[in-house]
Order: sequence, then C-alpha cells, then structure tokens
Amino acid sequence: MARTMKRWEMDGLGRDRLALKQAPVPEPATGEVLVRVAAVSLNYRDRLVIERGMGLPLAFPFTPASDLAGTVEAVGPGAKRFAPGDRVISTFAPGWIEGAPLGNARTPPYRTLGGAYPGVLADYVAFPEDWFVRAPASLDDAQASTLPCAGLTAWFALVEKGRVRAGETVLVEGTGGVALFGLQIARAHGAQVIVVSGSAGKLERARSLGADHAIDRTAEDWVEAVLRITDDHGADQILEIVGGPHLGKAVQAAAIGGQIHQIGVIEGFEVAAPVGPLMLKNLTIQGIGVGHRRALEHLVVAVDRIGLTPVIDARYPAAELPAALDHLDRGAFGKIVVEMT
Amino acid sequence: MARTMKRWEMDGLGRDRLALKQAPVPEPATGEVLVRVAAVSLNYRDRLVIERGMGLPLAFPFTPASDLAGTVEAVGPGAKRFAPGDRVISTFAPGWIEGAPLGNARTPPYRTLGGAYPGVLADYVAFPEDWFVRAPASLDDAQASTLPCAGLTAWFALVEKGRVRAGETVLVEGTGGVALFGLQIARAHGAQVIVVSGSAGKLERARSLGADHAIDRTAEDWVEAVLRITDDHGADQILEIVGGPHLGKAVQAAAIGGQIHQIGVIEGFEVAAPVGPLMLKNLTIQGIGVGHRRALEHLVVAVDRIGLTPVIDARYPAAELPAALDHLDRGAFGKIVVEMT
Amino acid sequence: MARTMKRWEMDGLGRDRLALKQAPVPEPATGEVLVRVAAVSLNYRDRLVIERGMGLPLAFPFTPASDLAGTVEAVGPGAKRFAPGDRVISTFAPGWIEGAPLGNARTPPYRTLGGAYPGVLADYVAFPEDWFVRAPASLDDAQASTLPCAGLTAWFALVEKGRVRAGETVLVEGTGGVALFGLQIARAHGAQVIVVSGSAGKLERARSLGADHAIDRTAEDWVEAVLRITDDHGADQILEIVGGPHLGKAVQAAAIGGQIHQIGVIEGFEVAAPVGPLMLKNLTIQGIGVGHRRALEHLVVAVDRIGLTPVIDARYPAAELPAALDHLDRGAFGKIVVEMT
Amino acid sequence: MARTMKRWEMDGLGRDRLALKQAPVPEPATGEVLVRVAAVSLNYRDRLVIERGMGLPLAFPFTPASDLAGTVEAVGPGAKRFAPGDRVISTFAPGWIEGAPLGNARTPPYRTLGGAYPGVLADYVAFPEDWFVRAPASLDDAQASTLPCAGLTAWFALVEKGRVRAGETVLVEGTGGVALFGLQIARAHGAQVIVVSGSAGKLERARSLGADHAIDRTAEDWVEAVLRITDDHGADQILEIVGGPHLGKAVQAAAIGGQIHQIGVIEGFEVAAPVGPLMLKNLTIQGIGVGHRRALEHLVVAVDRIGLTPVIDARYPAAELPAALDHLDRGAFGKIVVEMT
Repeated sequence: MARTMKRWEMDGLGRDRLALKQAPVPEPATGEVLVRVAAVSLNYRDRLVIERGMGLPLAFPFTPASDLAGTVEAVGPGAKRFAPGDRVISTFAPGWIEGAPLGNARTPPYRTLGGAYPGVLADYVAFPEDWFVRAPASLDDAQASTLPCAGLTAWFALVEKGRVRAGETVLVEGTGGVALFGLQIARAHGAQVIVVSGSAGKLERARSLGADHAIDRTAEDWVEAVLRITDDHGADQILEIVGGPHLGKAVQAAAIGGQIHQIGVIEGFEVAAPVGPLMLKNLTIQGIGVGHRRALEHLVVAVDRIGLTPVIDARYPAAELPAALDHLDRGAFGKIVVEMT
Repeated sequence: MARTMKRWEMDGLGRDRLALKQAPVPEPATGEVLVRVAAVSLNYRDRLVIERGMGLPLAFPFTPASDLAGTVEAVGPGAKRFAPGDRVISTFAPGWIEGAPLGNARTPPYRTLGGAYPGVLADYVAFPEDWFVRAPASLDDAQASTLPCAGLTAWFALVEKGRVRAGETVLVEGTGGVALFGLQIARAHGAQVIVVSGSAGKLERARSLGADHAIDRTAEDWVEAVLRITDDHGADQILEIVGGPHLGKAVQAAAIGGQIHQIGVIEGFEVAAPVGPLMLKNLTIQGIGVGHRRALEHLVVAVDRIGLTPVIDARYPAAELPAALDHLDRGAFGKIVVEMT
Repeated sequence: MARTMKRWEMDGLGRDRLALKQAPVPEPATGEVLVRVAAVSLNYRDRLVIERGMGLPLAFPFTPASDLAGTVEAVGPGAKRFAPGDRVISTFAPGWIEGAPLGNARTPPYRTLGGAYPGVLADYVAFPEDWFVRAPASLDDAQASTLPCAGLTAWFALVEKGRVRAGETVLVEGTGGVALFGLQIARAHGAQVIVVSGSAGKLERARSLGADHAIDRTAEDWVEAVLRITDDHGADQILEIVGGPHLGKAVQAAAIGGQIHQIGVIEGFEVAAPVGPLMLKNLTIQGIGVGHRRALEHLVVAVDRIGLTPVIDARYPAAELPAALDHLDRGAFGKIVVEMT
Repeated sequence: MARTMKRWEMDGLGRDRLALKQAPVPEPATGEVLVRVAAVSLNYRDRLVIERGMGLPLAFPFTPASDLAGTVEAVGPGAKRFAPGDRVISTFAPGWIEGAPLGNARTPPYRTLGGAYPGVLADYVAFPEDWFVRAPASLDDAQASTLPCAGLTAWFALVEKGRVRAGETVLVEGTGGVALFGLQIARAHGAQVIVVSGSAGKLERARSLGADHAIDRTAEDWVEAVLRITDDHGADQILEIVGGPHLGKAVQAAAIGGQIHQIGVIEGFEVAAPVGPLMLKNLTIQGIGVGHRRALEHLVVAVDRIGLTPVIDARYPAAELPAALDHLDRGAFGKIVVEMT
C-alpha cells in the first residue's frame, strides 16, 4: 500500500485557498477503518463551507466534502463491522445512529464530515467504523457516493418522516441532487410527482426520469399550476428546497394535512409563511437535517431492490475539483462527483 | 316551551353593531336537534370576526361565537344521536369528524360556527345532530362551554398530534384559554410545564395551577431561561400562541426533535423563523386549526376521568356581552364565559 | 327505467337455497342513491355466509355478497355526494368512514353488506350515499368490484397500517384475491415480495405478476426458505391469510420488529403462536377487518395513478352464480366476478 | 478499594447450585466502567434461568440476575459517558440503544444480562459503559434497581409503543412488578386503571396505589367485569402478563382498536386467541421484550419528574438470596430486591 497520498486542503476560507497536496496515508486507530476513497459527491453546502465557513469551527489545513464511496483497505484494532475489501459509503453526521440527532437546544447537531469533522477529498481516510455503511451492490462508486447527503435527505423526508405512499402527490422544487432523488424515491413508492423548475430543458429531462408533471415557473404561477394539476387537492408532500420566504408558496400549494419538508436555504436563512393556511390546512413543516445511519442503511437496501440509479450530471477527476465547483455554481442536474482514483 | 328567545345579532361589522334581539325559537329540521344554550365561551377569534370579519362570508344579521354548552330540548325527524335532556357541547368545525379537515388546497377549511356558519349567542340553536358532542358530566355548563375551541386546541396539539408523555417539557406561552388548558393537559400526562408571561401576577396564578416553572419575559430573555431551566435540553413541545416572528423564538427554545404547535396569530399573520435550528434540530412545526369531533369526544372522557376543571376568569350574564368583550380586550386569565340562562 | 329486476335470493342457509328471482327495482329513500349493479366480486367469506350463516342475523329472503361496481341511476332526496351517471363501488362495512371501526368490545363491528346488511347480487340496489365511493376511472366494472373487500384488505394492512416502503420484504400467503392485491400493492411501493403457495403453476403466474421469490411449500419448509432468501433477515410484513396455528409460522418467519397482518381464517378461528419470538423480536400482530372508507378512497386514487390492474381469474354471467361459487371452492387465482349486466 | 468481593455463582442448573463465593474485583477494560453494585432487583425470569436455563448458552460458573443499581467506582481507558461517583442502573439487553432490537429472524435478540451475558449478583461488575444509564436522583438504590426490566417493560408497552393518554382505560393483570409499574405509569398519564387479581388483599393494596377498579377474578368472570365497568367500551390497552391461552381473554376484553401488550409467559409459551374479535375489533397485539436504552433514559427522567416510587415488597441482604427467591415463588406484590452492600 502507498505511504503517501493526494488530498485537497485549504489553509483558509475561499476557493482560491484550495490546493491538492501530498499527505501521509493515515493509520486506522482503535475502532477505525482505513478507506481508499474512490469517489466524492459534492453538495451545495460544500460551496458555502469552502467560501464562507458557515460559522463552523474548521481546523486548518481543512479538507472539504462529506460524501464518499470507497473500499475498506485496512481495519484498526477492535474494529469489527467491516473487513478489507468491503465497499462502503460515509455517513454525513457521524454518530447519529437512530432516533433523534445528537446535540441539544443550545448546540444543535452541526458536526458533520467536511465541517466540524475532517472532509473526504483525499485518496484515503481513516475514520471510526461506525461512520460507514455498506455500499449498495448495484451502484458504481460515483453513484454510491451520492447517497450519504442528497440521497438520504430525500429518503429521510419522504420515507422516514413522510411515509410516502402510492397515490400521493409529491412536489419537488428544482432538479438538483435532492430534488431528483425525491423524484425517483417518490415514483418508486407509486406517488405522482410534480417538478417545478425555471429551465424548460431540465423539465424535459425530469419528465424522462418519470416526473408526471413539469411546471415551468418562469411561464406561469407555479402554485396555481399545482392546484390546476391536482384539481385543487394540492401536494401531499413538498420538498421545500428553495427556502426563505419561498416556504410561503409551499404552504399555499400544500394539500389539507400535507407535509412540507424544509430542506434548502438557497433563498435565505429565515423562512416565512402565511399562518392562516398553515393552521387551517393542518400542515406539518418538518425540518430535515439529512438523516441517521439506520435510514441510510434502509436506503441502500432499497436502492438495490428497486434499481434506483442516482443521476450524475458530470464526473470530474480529482485534479479538476475547481471545474467541478464551477459546475456546481452553474447549477447541476442531479449530482456532481469527483473521482479520486 | 317558549316561542321567542333572545339572540345577539349584528347588522354589520363592528362591536357597536351588536344588539340583543328577540327572535323566534327555531324548529329542528330533519337530522337536527334543538339545544337550549346555557353558556357560551368567547375566543380571541370572536373579537376578530366581530370587528373585522376576517374575510369570512358572514350572513347578516349575524350571530357571533362558536362554543356552547346546553341541553337538548327537542329532536328533529331522523335524528338519533341524542335525546331531550342530554347535555351537549358544540363542535367548532361542523362536519370534521375524524382524520383530515374538510376542504382543499385552494379553499382551506374555514367553515366554523360563528363565522361561515351561524353563531351560538342565543337562547336556542337548531343544528344538525352531528355538530354536537355529549358534555362531560363533571363540569357545569360554563366550564363545559370552554372545551370546543380552547380546550380542544390544546388537546389536539399536545395529545392527538404531540402524544405528550411523562417527563417531557412543555412550554406554554401566556395564560389565555389555550395556554391554561395546555398547562393542565400536559400536567395530567406527567409532563413538566414552563409558562412564559409578561405578568408576575398571572405567573403566580399559573404556578398555583401546577406550572413547574414560570418565566417573566419582561424580566429576562425567556429563551435563555428555558435553556437554563432544562439544562440546555430545550422544550419538547411548545404551544406557539403568539405567532408572527415569535415562531423564531420557539425554534430557538425547542429541544432536538421537538414539536412546535402553531396556534396563535396575536403578533401577525406571517410566521417567520431561522431555518438553521429548524433543520438541524429536526423540529416539527404543526399547524393547529382546533381539531376534529373524535378528539373532542376523547377530551370529554379525559376531563371526567382526570377531574380537569377549566379555568374561567369571569362569567357574564347574556346582556353584558359588551363587558365580556372588554374583558377579552384586557386579556383574560383562562376563559371568559357568557351565561345565557 | 325498468320496474322489475333480477336478484339472487336465499330463503334459508345452504347453497341449494339460492335462486335468481324477480323483484321490484327499489326506490332511493332520503339520503340514498339507486345504483345499477354491473359487477359483483365474490369473497371466500360469501361462501361461509351462504353455507353456514356465520352466526349473523340474516334477514330472509337474503341476498348475499358485498362488493359491487355500478352506476348511479337516481338520487334520493337530500343525497349530494353523487350524480346520476357516476360510477361507484360499495364499501364493505357501511358507516365506517375513518379511524376506529364502529361497535364496542362486547359487540364487535360485524355489520357488513351481504351479512347483517342486505347483499348486492341484484340488478339494482338502493343504499345510503355514504356507503359508496367513486370507482377508479382506469378499471372496468368487474375490476373495480374487486376493491371494496379484497383490494382494501391488502391496502389497509400494508399501507394504512403497515406503511410499507421500498426495500422491505413482504410475504404473501397463497394466490387468492387478497394475496395478489398484496403482491401488487407491495411491488408498487418498491418492496420485495415473496409468495408461498402449494401450486407450482400458481407460483409461476405470481412470478409473472412481479413476485421476486416464489416458495412451493409442498417442496420445502417455507419458513426456512424465507430465512434463506432474506439471509436470515426475515419478512418485514406478512399477510397472514391462512390463520389458525399457521400464525406460529408467520411469527417464525417475521423479521425483527416485523408486522403480521392477521387476515384469514382458512385453517381455523383460533390463532396460536409461540410467544418467545413474538416478544423477543418485538413483533406486531395486527387484526385486519377490511378497512374504512377513507382508505378505500386512497386506494382508488392509487389504482388510477399506478395503473394497478386487479387479477380476475374468471367472470361469470349473473345466471351462473353456482358455477362461480364452485370455482371459488376449487381456489381462484385472484378474484371471481359475477357480471350482472 | 477492595481486591476481593462476594458474588453469587452457580456451577450448574438448579437453585441448590447457588453459592456465595469470593472473587477478585474485576478491572474495567477499554470502554468499560467498574460499578459497585448496591442493589439487585429479581425477576420471574431469573427463576426460570436458575432452574431451567431457558435454553440459554450459560457460561459456568454463572452469576444470575440482570437489574442493578450502583455507583461508578472506576472508569476504563476510553470510557467517557460516566465519572466515578455517578449513580447508574444497568440495561437489560446490552447494546439495544434505540429502534429495533439486535438480532435477526433466525436468532432473535436473546442476549441479556444474567443470561447469555454475565449477571449482576456481585459486589462489583465491570461492563462496557454503553450498558448503563444514569440512575434517577429521586430513588434510592433498591428502588432504582427495579427500573431496567420491570419498569422499562411497562413503560415500553404503555408509553413507547402504546402512547397512553388521559381518558384511556388500561387493564393490568396481577400485582407483580410489571403490573404495578403499569398501574403507576398509566395513572401518571391520566388513564383509568383496572387491576385483575385473584387476591382480595392485593387488590386492596392496588386500590391504595391508585387503581380505579379492582376485579377479583375468583369472584366473577373478569372479562364481563371489564365490560361492565367500561360500559362495554372495553380496555384500550392491556398488559397481558399471564400469557398462553389467556391472550384469548385479553382479546375479548379489548376495546375497538385496542392494544394488547404481550409480556408474560406464566401460563405457557404458546399464546392462543379467537381470531374473530382480533380482526373485527382491529386489535393490535404487540410483543414486548423489555425495551431499549433510550426509552429507559426517558423513564428515568419521568420517574424524577412525576415522583414515581417503585413498589418493593421486600428487601433481602445479599446472603439471603435463597429467601428472596422463595418470596418470588410465593408471588410478590411489586418487586423483590437484594441489597448487596
């Protein structure tokens, strides 16, 4: 095995502080596994961390990104969950196994990989074995790397919290990673899916992925379109990915007893909504902060069973991380993946 | 039986348009029951309807108020649920029996007594039998009249939706009708209750009703106080009665996985909150629009079993409705009831 | 409209007491609708009622069967839910709208069509409008008639109670009506389905309907086969259709935290099971007595959305009811339908 | 600290093989804590293990019993959850933190303390820190030792699974440890409690603990009595502690939609029940195998908040374990505790 490896590191905030460095391959300590990273999936949040830090206690040199797929290369003392050769994916919020997330009212659970914990844009990482989950057999590494954050967020909202069922109407905002997972997961449960986007081209691609209805929000009032499509029933579940005052539109479009999953922060960190329909329609707004390991294990089983193929817009080699981030800036259709090996 | 009766009527919006009139005692039509009204409980909402109409399609002359307790006097053809002499209370949202409320995304379920339907400030009303529930045996009429809106709202939030359990921490805002029912219901399930108010005197009365902790929000930052009291755990359930941007404070004070029940509109009809803790803490915001008949039936059984006595701040005779509304303006500790007979 | 019609009637228990008679077309009373019956789906239970009465308070002349699809022909005074020309299906347990079934601990809710209430093997029936649900647009009458009992039973178990999700393993016993609906509904939610049967031919047909695994219980121990197929995980949900001591096998085959839906009575009216795995595996046994109207409405929407086509083994003209019952005796693959018109 | 300690050990099955021996005080290994045991609560199950082994893979010399309260004396390398001086209680099923229990369909989760794992009838034990929970501040050691099995079983059934609420009727069978915890927990949530027993004296004591109704099953048919007391409503939740064919009686006594928690095995290891009411009443039978650590943590908080005092029938010094087991044979009112120090 190699003694040195490549790793993206930052010595301060800002995209220009990213550099691909040489570093020693880590040794797995007690309870840890050494994983050879094959692919890293990027999230919108990675941009925010790289550029602004998001108020996180980053330790420099800092390696960004949270979502990897790879292969266990070695096993530290006492580690028992995996053996060398096992294909694994990371968990976004290490240590959140099941039930409520860690933390408390004063200090919400913000500790994730590529944030308070080190990131994964490296040839190897050595982390506690509890931070990994077996990868789905039916996906390649790049595909598998998209599950820990984007895939799990959509699954946690629609399945773990929303218990989506056949015949429901699910509204998906945009065509990013979480949105397209939401589309695929909802369809796999027999739900009708409506996608809202500002791009006719992306809507066309969403249709070919199985969207039942596609609304171009630049061409019409999308809330009115949802009401028209559903004959005033509204959407039973909404992945609210835009955020900010946009929550108010979700409240208008939601069905009686509907569930709104608050996921995104694109339009701001303060959500707002009219209280009348929220109360009269008995709506539930569910804050989603990715999800726990047990749900990720469920998602992995489901992916293999239903043959769900994550949508990857582009794959970049490790050295081209800046180009990958530029692609993220332009807005991806699904996920952007960096292939390490 | 009398042929004429007294009834409060308005010929237009505004408190000065209220007049106590003579009217014929109605006849119960097919499927209806005639109820002799003994007591009517007033809600904050009644003020809004009387003064501003709240955009409702009111039919003038209009009789306000929604919550009554009384006795079945006669039974129309085909009505089978009640017999003359049965003590009953009204349901706030007629026809909402169980499950999701009536209506759809475009037209939320706004049809209630004392609004789209006629009100109950009358000696007699004749309504469909489905609009009533048997009154609790352990309460007098004035007490029983407080259950349909204030009592059910607190019960629906904490029990039907929140499934409150012993050991949880419940935060109650203020000392109005819903707040005090919330305090009593939470205590009856073994929860720890924190009350926040701006009045030292009312906090003292809340303590004597069983509140474990009382926070004077004029003396300290109440969110900080909740964190201190709970050792940073936060509140597992919050009755968000203030509304508007105040929801943001509830989000700060909520425990990991906590539930916020959005109930009130005192500070505005647009709620707002920071999205970070909403998502990271996995919070649920539940819009509460009173509740269904089956839950009211559960509440009635519970009231009799646990000996819950609703808190009535003052009782006014029928003729003194204006004084009762003035009292409501000043802010009541618990409920204000108008006794018809 | 015709003044007389055909109707199957019995003047006592026993299949030889069935006769196709002339009867007056009924008039819809207040709140009722007159429905022209197009198709009637038969259930195993109909045989038990026809032959043994099942202890029900049958009124002779008695018309059996509970599940119809047809068209509203006329509307009685005060009926508002349907208009002439609307295609409808019946509800199995009239009056059970939502939540808990009617009845109490002493008198369980046994009142169904073709039992305590009259049956539907007639050209016309006049029933309260609340007893009907709109038929799915995507099914013909014979197909639609299979939903009220067999379809709803499987849906109520797996979706309403079980909240089946992608990746779960669902075990279905046999290839009768409920079993095949269970197979189709579970597949529509992304679950893996295992079918157990004693007929190789029926297993082959089940595979072609989408079953992932087919176990011939005459060729091997089916519990062992389930454990082998699932790598010892077991079945997350089981439609226990055989009943009697067979429940014990379901308990053995169930996964940790698994749900067993008790549906059938083929092997007896007393279920039995080993308590050790029931307790240690934290299993839930859910008694299923068909389901409520709101769930049937959900099923109808889902059927149209996912394109579920009920499996009909054979269709018989009205006059050939005895042959249809003989087919039921031999064991049907899916449903047997009698076409009235 | 002492170097040697006392420990009850068996060199084979049978009560006569129990001997109080000297043993070295264990050292806490990596991730372990050393706990000085103050009190050990005995369970019915301990008798079965001591006398028959229950098919468990016991390692001789074997120390029985699972439920302790004590004080952390020392902390092994890497252990972080507790500090010396912390008062703790054990968890019955080590490693079951939340969600579904460990194990699979073939090998249910049978690994508990005083069984597949070593027992706690010793002055000291050294176990992984994950196997402990902080003790409630409001209880002494003997009282605290009753929570891990008896207390948690009742809590897990009624609160974690059953979500008991005010106004429900809870039926408790007998007056053993689980039964009395069930009585106290149900009462703390505002439920009405009915106790069934064969002893008039114990029923009297149950009344003084808060039971609303007491049925002497030797004096009348207890199912009929439940129906009479509840006006035919039946019991919403039943702690089925007797087991075997007795489950059938619980099915008869249960309310529509009621929940039966299968807990006990006194009358046999094969449960049986009539399937008619099980299905028609939409009953749920929930297998309860104690519960997970998170629920035990909830119970501890609740005990402190509501001031629940476990019922201890008798306390025995460590040397008098045989007398304590004899008392268990005779049937205890609540719990029997052995005090080690």
